Amino acid sequence: MNDETTTIAQLRQRITTFNDERDWGQYHSPRNLAMAVSVEAGELLELFLWSADGGPQPAVESRGPRVAEEAADVAITLLNFCERAGIDLADAIDSKLDANAVRYPVDKARGRMLKHDELDG
Amino acid sequence: MNDETTTIAQLRQRITTFNDERDWGQYHSPRNLAMAVSVEAGELLELFLWSADGGPQPAVESRGPRVAEEAADVAITLLNFCERAGIDLADAIDSKLDANAVRYPVDKARGRMLKHDELDG
Amino acid sequence: MNDETTTIAQLRQRITTFNDERDWGQYHSPRNLAMAVSVEAGELLELFLWSADGGPQPAVESRGPRVAEEAADVAITLLNFCERAGIDLADAIDSKLDANAVRYPVDKARGRMLKHDELDG
Amino acid sequence: MNDETTTIAQLRQRITTFNDERDWGQYHSPRNLAMAVSVEAGELLELFLWSADGGPQPAVESRGPRVAEEAADVAITLLNFCERAGIDLADAIDSKLDANAVRYPVDKARGRMLKHDELDG
Repeated sequence: MNDETTTIAQLRQRITTFNDERDWGQYHSPRNLAMAVSVEAGELLELFLWSADGGPQPAVESRGPRVAEEAADVAITLLNFCERAGIDLADAIDSKLDANAVRYPVDKARGRMLKHDELDG
Repeated sequence: MNDETTTIAQLRQRITTFNDERDWGQYHSPRNLAMAVSVEAGELLELFLWSADGGPQPAVESRGPRVAEEAADVAITLLNFCERAGIDLADAIDSKLDANAVRYPVDKARGRMLKHDELDG
Repeated sequence: MNDETTTIAQLRQRITTFNDERDWGQYHSPRNLAMAVSVEAGELLELFLWSADGGPQPAVESRGPRVAEEAADVAITLLNFCERAGIDLADAIDSKLDANAVRYPVDKARGRMLKHDELDG
Repeated sequence: MNDETTTIAQLRQRITTFNDERDWGQYHSPRNLAMAVSVEAGELLELFLWSADGGPQPAVESRGPRVAEEAADVAITLLNFCERAGIDLADAIDSKLDANAVRYPVDKARGRMLKHDELDG
């Protein structure tokens, strides 16, 4: 599988099959999966602790291979969440980017990482 | 866009264009984006605070529309992260599920949500 | 040390000495420590994954001893953060509870876990 | 209240009274409070997004007053957690620092922010 040819639906199907084989659906309430997304995000973040802006990221070379693994864990858990919460993720992303385009107009937001309510006239 | 027909690469392209228009790439180090993934995961989790196992999730109906938005924010930030960290997400998910299949064999893991090192014979 | 007799300042002193002996202060920017608080919070949360409302928490007995350890890690990191950000934590807690008492008046908030902007007249 | 004179027990008492007046204890399972600690940690982290190593932290001056508030929220939630999980926090911190002193001996750990299993001879 690769990003070029793989649809979100194909990833969801692969993950759902994995869960079904293990009968894990009984634990997969939206609330439990939202907890799990946060836990996995924390494990990804841990790899970048004490890195420097201008230095290697992560700071410790031996952590390198774990970066893709932890990113995958966040994605798998989030796709599980979408499955259980009835969310079409591609549609949600598309809609959110449309909304963000209004909140962060190009002329005001260019080069500035402020929250939309911190952008002035 | 919808999950059935949208590839990961198409989502990445849509997000990269959004960032390029705003010249936000200069802030998007892997470390900064790993921080942002955690922040967004916390915002998703907040919607499910004080929900009950058997009750509606989220507990407050008016939070409903925000669930897809916050899930989208986690995904957008994670795809930004993958862009900057040079990760093919579909490949990473595929590889992680292969590894998980070894760590969580069907006969041991069925119906049990234990970590792999908590599963005994 | 115990909660009954130990002041926040005594805990801060104990932690500062620990860091000074290891020359770790150079890494302890507020931003880095805010990252570390999130990472430690995720490790605490992980212990409670897949627990049930009415069941033992955490769900797996062998995780029990780790609960106090992970809670301590969150506290140590937060006290480090306060040290570097120039925050008197007892004063901040006192002020925040005063503010919360206004946002969550007893008669409106009793028995209801809504955010202050979700509480109606 | 201030760090110099305030004990952990005094903070816990102040927080418990606040909760009792609002009858919030019914929602305060260890699991729910562990979720809340993560949510609050995310809100603290958000203030430091897109800051630079050498620049002001947080990057946006108007976020300044919120730093102490969010740090207080993490602490309040963690003290609630300790109350419900039966943890003496000062004792837990003391024990964890003792354990860390063994895992991170001064001569190996000085000036190096590696995890204990990344420190070599």
